[in-house]
Amino acid sequence: MSVYTILVYDTLSERNAGVLRTCRKYLHHMQRSVFEGDLSSAQLVRLRADIGAHIDASYDHVLVYTFPPGAAPERQSWGVADDRPHDIL
Amino acid sequence: MSVYTILVYDTLSERNAGVLRTCRKYLHHMQRSVFEGDLSSAQLVRLRADIGAHIDASYDHVLVYTFPPGAAPERQSWGVADDRPHDIL
Repeated sequence: MSVYTILVYDTLSERNAGVLRTCRKYLHHMQRSVFEGDLSSAQLVRLRADIGAHIDASYDHVLVYTFPPGAAPERQSWGVADDRPHDIL
Repeated sequence: MSVYTILVYDTLSERNAGVLRTCRKYLHHMQRSVFEGDLSSAQLVRLRADIGAHIDASYDHVLVYTFPPGAAPERQSWGVADDRPHDIL
């Protein structure tokens, strides 16, 4: 069973690249520090451990929202059309 | 009828303060560029117009997720305990 996941990170800039790379292994890149995607419970556990190895838990902060199947949110984009290159498949 | 709303902005730094101030009028501040809260449809329309007046729509980007009543997501915080001062009521 998968859960739809939105992740937003707020990390010291020197750690951003590592966190970005980690998130990209699991999720789609939506905006500078925002990722989305479907994860199994096991993947979510692995993502948390993987991110834990890249952040300083005394300084950095990662917000993770999860939704039960079928409850994915409606998304609106305000401002620039999201035509910048990223890794959405 | 209210919709639960998550907003994440990615704006040029010189415009961050105005966007932050605008979001604070409508939502709770969860993380650097992340806000949450319940909005009526009318408030969501006003928020969009208000933000539109503060961003450069050819450069800035604001992601807005909305949920039907009762479908608010589960939230996890990874990393630092969120004990920094902010405006959650």
